[in-house]
Amino acid sequence: MHNDTIAAIATPPGVGGVGVIRVSGSDAFETVLPLFKRPGGATALPPSHKLTFGHIIDPQSQEVLDEVLVAFMHAPHTYTREHVVEIQGHGGPLILRRILRAVLAQGARMANPGEFTMRAFLNGRLDLAQAEAVMDLIESETEAGQRLALQQLQGRVSEQVQQARHTILGVIARIEASIDFPEDDIPTPQAQELSPLIADAQKQVLLLLSGADQGKLYRQGLRTAIIGRPNVGKSSLLNAFLRTERAIVTPIAGTTRDTVEEVANLRGIPLHLIDTAGITPTDDPVERIGVQRSRTAAESADVVLLVFDASEPLTEQDRLVSAEVQAMGFKVQTPDEEATARKRPVVIVLNKSDLEQKLEIAELKQLWPEGVFINTSTLSDAGLQHLENILAEHVLAGRKLYSESVLITSTRHQEALRRANEHLEASYSSLEQQLPLDFVSIDLRAAYDSLGEVTGETASEDLLDKIFSEFCIGK
Amino acid sequence: MHNDTIAAIATPPGVGGVGVIRVSGSDAFETVLPLFKRPGGATALPPSHKLTFGHIIDPQSQEVLDEVLVAFMHAPHTYTREHVVEIQGHGGPLILRRILRAVLAQGARMANPGEFTMRAFLNGRLDLAQAEAVMDLIESETEAGQRLALQQLQGRVSEQVQQARHTILGVIARIEASIDFPEDDIPTPQAQELSPLIADAQKQVLLLLSGADQGKLYRQGLRTAIIGRPNVGKSSLLNAFLRTERAIVTPIAGTTRDTVEEVANLRGIPLHLIDTAGITPTDDPVERIGVQRSRTAAESADVVLLVFDASEPLTEQDRLVSAEVQAMGFKVQTPDEEATARKRPVVIVLNKSDLEQKLEIAELKQLWPEGVFINTSTLSDAGLQHLENILAEHVLAGRKLYSESVLITSTRHQEALRRANEHLEASYSSLEQQLPLDFVSIDLRAAYDSLGEVTGETASEDLLDKIFSEFCIGK
Repeated sequence: MHNDTIAAIATPPGVGGVGVIRVSGSDAFETVLPLFKRPGGATALPPSHKLTFGHIIDPQSQEVLDEVLVAFMHAPHTYTREHVVEIQGHGGPLILRRILRAVLAQGARMANPGEFTMRAFLNGRLDLAQAEAVMDLIESETEAGQRLALQQLQGRVSEQVQQARHTILGVIARIEASIDFPEDDIPTPQAQELSPLIADAQKQVLLLLSGADQGKLYRQGLRTAIIGRPNVGKSSLLNAFLRTERAIVTPIAGTTRDTVEEVANLRGIPLHLIDTAGITPTDDPVERIGVQRSRTAAESADVVLLVFDASEPLTEQDRLVSAEVQAMGFKVQTPDEEATARKRPVVIVLNKSDLEQKLEIAELKQLWPEGVFINTSTLSDAGLQHLENILAEHVLAGRKLYSESVLITSTRHQEALRRANEHLEASYSSLEQQLPLDFVSIDLRAAYDSLGEVTGETASEDLLDKIFSEFCIGK
Repeated sequence: MHNDTIAAIATPPGVGGVGVIRVSGSDAFETVLPLFKRPGGATALPPSHKLTFGHIIDPQSQEVLDEVLVAFMHAPHTYTREHVVEIQGHGGPLILRRILRAVLAQGARMANPGEFTMRAFLNGRLDLAQAEAVMDLIESETEAGQRLALQQLQGRVSEQVQQARHTILGVIARIEASIDFPEDDIPTPQAQELSPLIADAQKQVLLLLSGADQGKLYRQGLRTAIIGRPNVGKSSLLNAFLRTERAIVTPIAGTTRDTVEEVANLRGIPLHLIDTAGITPTDDPVERIGVQRSRTAAESADVVLLVFDASEPLTEQDRLVSAEVQAMGFKVQTPDEEATARKRPVVIVLNKSDLEQKLEIAELKQLWPEGVFINTSTLSDAGLQHLENILAEHVLAGRKLYSESVLITSTRHQEALRRANEHLEASYSSLEQQLPLDFVSIDLRAAYDSLGEVTGETASEDLLDKIFSEFCIGK
C-alpha cells in the first residue's frame, strides 16, 4: 500500500517570496480542507487544480498561520497520480514548518526523500530512468547537462532501451515457442537466423554504451584542482576562469567551507574548480592544515591545473609540488596517447605572462618532459582561451563532443547496459558453440532483465529505496 | 506607470522539488503564452488560476526547457492586482534561470526586490504597514514574531493607526471649518472642547508606542555573545542551549562564516547566540584574528553571557576577559534597577558544575560585586533552565510579556508614532497657551501626516524605494 497521505515542503530551504507544501495520497483533500479557511466561508472543494485564496488556520485555536493559495488536484492528473494538494505560503522557513506541522497533525505522514516521485513511478506515470532524470534535472549544472536530463525525463533513453528489450524478447519468444510446444511443429530456429537478431540488439546496447562516459561527464562534471606553491596566482586563475564564463557559472552552495569550489562550464561539462591553499612545507600548525587540505583536494581530483609563476625562477618549492602531483599519479598526456575511460591528466600553466619572464623552460621540461606549457596572464586574460581548449582536449580525450543523440548519464544505467552486453555476448557464443537453445535463452533473458533495471521493470525494492533516498525531500 | 510586465524567481535559491517564477503586469499573459506548450496543442488561455500542465519551450528553437504547471491569474484577484502568471518548474537554479531568461526575452523586465509587493501596495491591495509585514513574516524567527507579523499583515496595526488618524482629522475638521467659513457662523471651537479629543488621539498613539520596544525585540531578536577565555565550555553552552530548544530553533544561513551564530527561542524572542573564540592574549597571528573577531562580536551584542570554568581557580585570563567586557560597557543589572529602553546586561555563568568546584566565588565577587552567578553543567543540562529564566528577566527587564494586544515591531513605525506624539504634545500646549487655532491645526496635521507614514498615505517615493529594496527578489 502506497497511498497513505504524505506531506513535505517542496521548495528549497531558505528565505524567498513563495514556499510550497505538497500533500499526496488518498486522504490529501480531507487532510487539508479542515485547515483551509476561505474569505466567504466556503467549505466545498474548489474546482480541481484551481489556485484558491484563503488562510491556513490551526483547527483547534483557529489561529491564522498564513495567507495562502491552495490547489486541490484530483487523481490521476497529478504528479503522483494520487490526489495532491499544493499549499503556497510565504517563503519563510518557520512559516512553512508550522503549516507542515498542522498538515501532519491532521494525520498525514512526513514524506521520505523522493517519495512523491517514487509514487509517480509506482503508479506508472514515470519509468525508473525518467524518475531518476527528475533529480538530474534539478541538479544539472550546465545547459548541456540539463538537456540530457530532460531527454531522459521525456523518455528518450527508456525508448531506446525498450527497443533493445523488444528485439531480445522477439528472439526469446521464437526459441521458447519451439521448446514449449514441440508438438505444434514449430521449427527449431537456426543459429544463422537468430544471430543477426541478437547482433541487432547488441548494436543498440553498444550504441547507448558508447556515449555513456561522455554523458556521465556532462552530469557529474570534473573535479579540477588548481595546485601550486603559494603566490603563483591560483586564486586569480580561478577568478579569471569564472569571469570569462560568467554567464554560465553557478556557485555550489555549502559543499565545503574549507576549500573554495566553483563551477565553470567547459563546453557543457561542469568544471568543479577547486582553489587550494598553496602546497608548501611549513611548521605553522594552522598553515599545515591548509596544505593538508590542498593535498586531499588534489588527490580526489580528476584533473590538476599545476600553476607556476613564470616571472620568477623555478624554486625548490615548485619542484616539491611537482613531485607531489606526480606521486599522486597525475600525468601529462601526449597527443598520440589513446584515450581510456579513466585518466588523471595534469595541465601545466605558466602564469604571470604579462611580467618579465624569468622561469627557465628547460628546467621545467626536466620535471615535465612531455608537458605542454600554457602561458597565461590573469591580468590581461591572455592564454585563458588556449587553456580552455587544451583542457577540453584533455578532458574529452578524443571523445566526440555532445551531439543531439541520446546519451546515458548514469553509472547505474551504464552498469546495467554493460551487463546486458555481456549476456548478449554469452548468448552469442552459446549459439556459435551450438549449445542447446535453452542456454541461449537463459542468457537472453538475463540481458532482457538487465535492461529492465534501467527502466525499473526488474528493479528490486532495495534498489528503489537507494535511488529515491538520494532525492531531495519534497520531490 | 507601474504596469509594465515584471518577472522573477519567487522561491528561495538552491535545490528543491519545486521552483516558482512569477510574472506580473498588463502583458503577463501575452508574455508567457508563446512559451507554453500543452500536450493537446491547446493555445487558448486556460481558466483563471488553474494550474495547467505543459512545457516551457524556447519559441525560436522549440527546445523544451522544462515540464511545468502554469497558472494564468486574471486581475484583480491576484497578489499584485495585475494579471499574474505563475510558472512552477523543477526546483533547480539553472532551470529556473533558463525559464526566467525565456520570459525576459519575451519582453518582461526583471523585477526589482519587493516590486510585486510594491505593486500590491500601489494598487491598493495592501497598505504600507501590511506590505512591510510580508517580509517580516517571511523572516520571522519565532512563532511569536510570526504572529505579530501576521497581525500586521492582516491590518490590525493599520487599523489602530487609522483610528488615531480619524480622531485627529475630526479635530482638524472642526478647527478648519471655523477658520475657512467664518461667515457661516460656525462657532469657534473652545480649548476645553478640543483638548479631550486630542488627549484621546494621544492615548491611542501612546498605547501603540508602549509595546514598540518589546515588539521590536520579537522581530529583531537579541544578539547574545557567549564570551570567556578558551576552554570554559562556550561552544558546549551554545549547543546545550540549542538542544533544549531543539523544536523551535532555526539556523541562520550564511550570515557569517567567521563566528558561529544560531537562533534559540527565549519565550518568543529570537536569541541570536554568537559563539566566539576564546578571548586570550596571543602572539599567534591567526589566533589573534579569532580573538579580534570575538571582541567585535561582543561589542555589537545586546547581552553578554560571560562564562567561567567553575572547576578551576580563577585565572589571570579570566580577569582580563572580565575587564574587557566591563570596558565594553556591559553591566550586571540589579533587580531594583529601573528598566530603560537600552541596556547591555552581562549574565555570569559558572560552567562545569558537574566537576569538583575550585573557583573561589569570593574572588569572582570582587570582579562582579552585583553579579548573580548561575551554575550550569552542559553535561547534565543542570542550571540551563535557570539561566534561561534569568536571561528572560534581564532581557525583558520588567516589560510585560507578549499578550494578545497589537504590538509595533518596526523602528520606522516607532519613529513615526513618536513624531506624531510630539506633534500632538505641541498642539496641546498651543491650545493651552491659547495660541490661534491655526497653530493647533498645523501641529495636528503634522501628527496626522506622521501617522500616515505608517500606513503609507504620506510616504515619499524615496521611502517606498528604501522599504521595498530590503525585500527579497520575487516578493
